[in-house]
Amino acid sequence: VRWPVDQTHAPDLRSWVESANDSTTDFPIQNLPFCVFKSGENDRPRVGTGIGAQILDLDGCRRAGLLDEPALSADSLGPVMALPPDARSALRLRLSEILSREVWRAAAEPLLIPAAQVMLCLPVDIGDYTDFYASIFHATNVGRLFRPDNPLLPNYKYVPIGYHGRASSVVASGTHVRRPWGQRKDPNAETPGFAPSRSLDYELEVGFFIGRGNRLGEVIPVREAQEHIFGLCLLNDWSARDIQAWEYQPLGPFLAKSFASSVSPWVVTMEALAPYRVPAFQRAEGDPSPLPYLTSDDENAAGGIDLTLEVYLCSKLMHESGIEPMRVSRGNLRSLYWTIGQMVAHHTSNGCNLRTGDLLGTGTISGPDRTECGCLLEIALRVPEPLRLPSGETRTFLEDGDEVVMRGCCRKNGFVTIGFGECRGVVLPAAV
Amino acid sequence: VRWPVDQTHAPDLRSWVESANDSTTDFPIQNLPFCVFKSGENDRPRVGTGIGAQILDLDGCRRAGLLDEPALSADSLGPVMALPPDARSALRLRLSEILSREVWRAAAEPLLIPAAQVMLCLPVDIGDYTDFYASIFHATNVGRLFRPDNPLLPNYKYVPIGYHGRASSVVASGTHVRRPWGQRKDPNAETPGFAPSRSLDYELEVGFFIGRGNRLGEVIPVREAQEHIFGLCLLNDWSARDIQAWEYQPLGPFLAKSFASSVSPWVVTMEALAPYRVPAFQRAEGDPSPLPYLTSDDENAAGGIDLTLEVYLCSKLMHESGIEPMRVSRGNLRSLYWTIGQMVAHHTSNGCNLRTGDLLGTGTISGPDRTECGCLLEIALRVPEPLRLPSGETRTFLEDGDEVVMRGCCRKNGFVTIGFGECRGVVLPAAV
Repeated sequence: VRWPVDQTHAPDLRSWVESANDSTTDFPIQNLPFCVFKSGENDRPRVGTGIGAQILDLDGCRRAGLLDEPALSADSLGPVMALPPDARSALRLRLSEILSREVWRAAAEPLLIPAAQVMLCLPVDIGDYTDFYASIFHATNVGRLFRPDNPLLPNYKYVPIGYHGRASSVVASGTHVRRPWGQRKDPNAETPGFAPSRSLDYELEVGFFIGRGNRLGEVIPVREAQEHIFGLCLLNDWSARDIQAWEYQPLGPFLAKSFASSVSPWVVTMEALAPYRVPAFQRAEGDPSPLPYLTSDDENAAGGIDLTLEVYLCSKLMHESGIEPMRVSRGNLRSLYWTIGQMVAHHTSNGCNLRTGDLLGTGTISGPDRTECGCLLEIALRVPEPLRLPSGETRTFLEDGDEVVMRGCCRKNGFVTIGFGECRGVVLPAAV
Repeated sequence: VRWPVDQTHAPDLRSWVESANDSTTDFPIQNLPFCVFKSGENDRPRVGTGIGAQILDLDGCRRAGLLDEPALSADSLGPVMALPPDARSALRLRLSEILSREVWRAAAEPLLIPAAQVMLCLPVDIGDYTDFYASIFHATNVGRLFRPDNPLLPNYKYVPIGYHGRASSVVASGTHVRRPWGQRKDPNAETPGFAPSRSLDYELEVGFFIGRGNRLGEVIPVREAQEHIFGLCLLNDWSARDIQAWEYQPLGPFLAKSFASSVSPWVVTMEALAPYRVPAFQRAEGDPSPLPYLTSDDENAAGGIDLTLEVYLCSKLMHESGIEPMRVSRGNLRSLYWTIGQMVAHHTSNGCNLRTGDLLGTGTISGPDRTECGCLLEIALRVPEPLRLPSGETRTFLEDGDEVVMRGCCRKNGFVTIGFGECRGVVLPAAV
């Protein structure tokens, strides 16, 4: 199965939900992202789809007989993610029909809830969270800090480098993030100390959720990887750089990352992303070709996705002064050295089993330009002056009260623009 | 709560289950390890306790009115692990009574099932698996491979080094382990290849399961860590050394470990281990003291456990020739540079949340002696000749058909010896 561009992507398709036809919405009828929401703190989580400024209650639709997919009754997206490709496509087509045709309006309209009135939850119970390091620009920028003459390690162009992350501390957008304590050693100090991190950073990433998994001992080749990826979200892999620098040798980042990772609550499906597929990143001349297990003749399977990403920062002072958040980073998923299909194939190449709902992250997404640094560490490395905010403040790393907002959208001539909603988080002061 | 040595540990306590009084059993009545078992492939998993060669069906006991703990009705040990300390102690005391006093025999005996007749399952759904690197002897041996003059990195004596492992591929003892494929680069080769690993290794570790967890943003100090640790098991963190060497820079081991990690199915509780507590490892003169957040005035909380560990190897030829498995490694949990309490405190020091059922591993447990190398890599580094098996075969790394068996036991004068059962796995040939 390759997700085709079909009538659900037609640019002239309109919804009877008026806000979905607004050119500024992230969620036109061509998108149909999934979410899990609660109407109140004690409400049961339910599965929904975003449409303009509304959420369509999909379990409500099932109970009303509008949809007959039993997976929609769960309190997480797990069963929907596990659906076989044809059932996923059928569900999308049916949602597109319900939300576009007037004939279904009377039955479906009572099942709409304004998105602003609900709590958006984590979309699924995440079994394992894996984070990659797929941006060669990020790897080069960071590597230069440690090895100025030889920033990229010899394995980088062969291995989609990744590591296991912490699943328990993945939180939904909007969850406040407390500045972590940790061990750090100042370069001139004899011994390390234990104190709140002084170099808290964001990392602009894209997350992708596994749909159907594979059994332990089986592999998922690149050409089949698309079928196992349910959809994408925004991911902020908060990082404490001082803790990381002291702890990461020889087994990699640990407490520098495990205090929180934020995901946007909307899962944009691979079906919705079909129009925005692009060829894989063009490797530089002289770069090795990927090893055969990381290649596929199928261009769609092997390709990337044109997804523009942005990071905005809003300090407490800016917020209090009514100043708009300032864009501090941007990037594009297509600039990654490795595609998400290659990451899935590599992850399972040793027989490791992925399970429905597993979250994989791309790693920080940076581009070649100075405006395309996906984290503050890189901005500090590449831009001589500290970041100047419109409030007159400056930033090298995040301060307490800062809010980080990530956004993403897919644009293509002849198609409607679709967006990813937001991934937000405010930095709280360290515990006393 | 510090688990006291009480009447449940009395060396003269005997069970009406005859096999529990055999001096060679791992499971005398002083042990009472928990497990999850199935009578048949399609049977519902049930919680049990090991007693001699039998398993007492604890959900059966609950239904028969012998035990009134609702947590025993679950199909995993999760709810039992989450019990508060007093309920855990009460359950242990009650089990000890039921299995020692003749008055309960008539009611309980029908609820015994020979352990040899059941399938032993993973004890709990593991949310996150974290692996530490707490043996200074192991870290020194392995570090010498890369840095002969300066084997230990500067952070080692300050930071309980750990990394996130893969939870999905943790399997129960007895599960066969398929040799993984992966990228490796021979030292003389220009480029890497993709092939089955040629240097498959075991790692002798102890795993410990989290009982009650902590909320995101909260810490667990060393003095409280004991209450959050439910119990211990044996852990074999299978490793592909050639894959590891090529992939691990800069983010740590990934596919070299994620193809399988085996745990013994019996969880020996912290209560059962109370008599075998010992002071923490004596640091060498001149070593720094642990930072304050890794210390406690409470000797029991800060201390170690005297747990002897052994690894046996049995090749296919040995098995076919009726030759007994050969002991190839041994070690003791008390030789770790960091205690399990310190590992819990460090893990949560940044506010990272641990959840009930999370598995933490110690890392490879090696001692100072050549006979105390916890993995084949270290034996190869420290012993000039390849390992010679009683069949006449030699081993540098594991071959297809090799079975690795780990055992552990606690001995103390004036107390009965308790054991951990076995953690077994046979190496299968790589997939074609």
